[in-house]
Amino acid sequence: MTAPLPDPVVPGPVLVIGCGLIGTSVALGLRDLGVQVHLRDARPSNVELAASLGAGTADPVAAPALVVVAVPPAAVVDTARAALAEFPSAVVTDVASVKGSVSGTLTDPRFVGGHPMAGKERSGPMAASALLFEGRAWAVVPTDGTDPGAIALVEQVATALGSVVRRMDAASHDRAVALVSHVPHLVSALTAGLLTQADGDDLALAGQGLRDVIRIAGSDRGLWVDIIGSNAGQVGDILDDLAVRLDDLRSAVRSADGSVAEHLDRGRAGVARVPGKHGEQPAALASVFVSIDDTPGELSRLFAAIGDAGVNIEDMRIDHELGRLVGVVEVVVQAGVAEHLHTALIERGWAAFR
Amino acid sequence: MTAPLPDPVVPGPVLVIGCGLIGTSVALGLRDLGVQVHLRDARPSNVELAASLGAGTADPVAAPALVVVAVPPAAVVDTARAALAEFPSAVVTDVASVKGSVSGTLTDPRFVGGHPMAGKERSGPMAASALLFEGRAWAVVPTDGTDPGAIALVEQVATALGSVVRRMDAASHDRAVALVSHVPHLVSALTAGLLTQADGDDLALAGQGLRDVIRIAGSDRGLWVDIIGSNAGQVGDILDDLAVRLDDLRSAVRSADGSVAEHLDRGRAGVARVPGKHGEQPAALASVFVSIDDTPGELSRLFAAIGDAGVNIEDMRIDHELGRLVGVVEVVVQAGVAEHLHTALIERGWAAFR
Repeated sequence: MTAPLPDPVVPGPVLVIGCGLIGTSVALGLRDLGVQVHLRDARPSNVELAASLGAGTADPVAAPALVVVAVPPAAVVDTARAALAEFPSAVVTDVASVKGSVSGTLTDPRFVGGHPMAGKERSGPMAASALLFEGRAWAVVPTDGTDPGAIALVEQVATALGSVVRRMDAASHDRAVALVSHVPHLVSALTAGLLTQADGDDLALAGQGLRDVIRIAGSDRGLWVDIIGSNAGQVGDILDDLAVRLDDLRSAVRSADGSVAEHLDRGRAGVARVPGKHGEQPAALASVFVSIDDTPGELSRLFAAIGDAGVNIEDMRIDHELGRLVGVVEVVVQAGVAEHLHTALIERGWAAFR
Repeated sequence: MTAPLPDPVVPGPVLVIGCGLIGTSVALGLRDLGVQVHLRDARPSNVELAASLGAGTADPVAAPALVVVAVPPAAVVDTARAALAEFPSAVVTDVASVKGSVSGTLTDPRFVGGHPMAGKERSGPMAASALLFEGRAWAVVPTDGTDPGAIALVEQVATALGSVVRRMDAASHDRAVALVSHVPHLVSALTAGLLTQADGDDLALAGQGLRDVIRIAGSDRGLWVDIIGSNAGQVGDILDDLAVRLDDLRSAVRSADGSVAEHLDRGRAGVARVPGKHGEQPAALASVFVSIDDTPGELSRLFAAIGDAGVNIEDMRIDHELGRLVGVVEVVVQAGVAEHLHTALIERGWAAFR
């Protein structure tokens, strides 16, 4: 921290209020960019911990260029309002997951709502990382009265931290996250909840499909109670829609009139609408499956072989299996190179199949 | 196929009726074990194709030890009944995803219902593989009157093909697959279906959680219409239960009385009940995240580094990101070695974080 730093791409100093996962990660990322960062938290131990991780200094700051409010959802409005008053020339932003209540209350031109679409199952400063925002969407939520320079600064910070900025209004944001995040989380929890009554023997038949559907239901519930609570209107509306569709599906299943197919078709259409990797529309991808021993170094050998074949991996999955020390790795590649990869792996002695 | 083969662990000859994905995969797996396999299909081109892949011969067989009925669900009962009559000393099994209608109708002691929990998004003999059943559960569904020797033979075949046998009665099987497979599939489709009305901008905020929940909704719908149709009773009962819970959740979201937390807790409890890799209870796992360039060979270098560190990978995930040529790989390892791996990767110059 005493080495000369390059010219910062983001003006400072920046004050981060709230040294949890998100605040400390913002601070670490800005420090890596050479920005002077000051830290504040209602719990002094959080500041001390974040400072010891290299996230910045606990010293007070007189005139920050930017204040990042990263406190729990319920405290955002009061904290941001106090910061606007305390620092009359600073831009103030927040990172809360729901924006309607924030943007509706904080009408100062220097306030810009924000929401980085990043998180982890662990929370707190120890879980923080300068890389947390790498490649994630960062919603920037101004109002009509927000100062354009303030918007530009917040977008500059989000971009500098590796995020892709998505500018939108608060209502659009809250509807969007209800649809792509909050309701899927609740659906996942409901589906997982059905398993609590199951026989253990029933669960022995569980495959990867079930595991994917319920994965997010395993995450920390405290934060999610707050998130759902502060977006109850949008979430409730979509759940109402879901309930209507579920009723229709129940009739379809029992009537055996073929209308289950319509629900499945609608599902496929929805899947096709979700952007793929790199934000583009889903590419034509294909999978090559490879059987491997579940021992250290096997994946290393496999990936070396794939690299030798000159093939870039778009995605991959290790299939969980039952009672055997062998695994099947699904390697997802551009469709045009799948056959080449399949052949190349077999030539190199791998049990590859398509 | 003319080379001398080792003594088969499975007695033959075996007749496979229905040369689609599952039938051809069974045939290929048995051929690899040295078993003599005969093929039959209502479509001669399927037999020809499967035979050309090395799955067996189209020649007729006089007295098979085992007949595997792998025809579409609606044709299973008639086909199996005809096989029992045609081959009076053969054991006959099937591979249909729903067992109640099969086991209730076919009461011959030589018939043993079966259901390998394996599939792919592609169908047909070209998608077949001898490795399809590797590490998958294979439900074996006898009735009280089934001959023990017949059960033993089918279980021997499933085990020889790499599966883990789960013996259960038809009602238990159908309830189990409704819970762990059919209803999760429908829930995934309903959730994905909600996205059909979304703005494209809304979907730009989609993260990995949503993608996991809706992944299985992207699969082939024809087979799923049949599966849901033939298990409508069990699926309908669970959907009724789900509807009650959804109504309760909707009230909880709108009343803000804190009862959303109960649903989230129930979800976490359900996730915890699903067996982990190797069929054991979920191990204490931890993740190390690594930022990589999205270029060929990067994963190879990363896995070589992990192998050098002597760490075995339990699971992994490549995070999809938006608009940037960089990725974050989540490497899941036993909790006890995560810190060691994290340190080892940083020492080797990787951008690793926890």
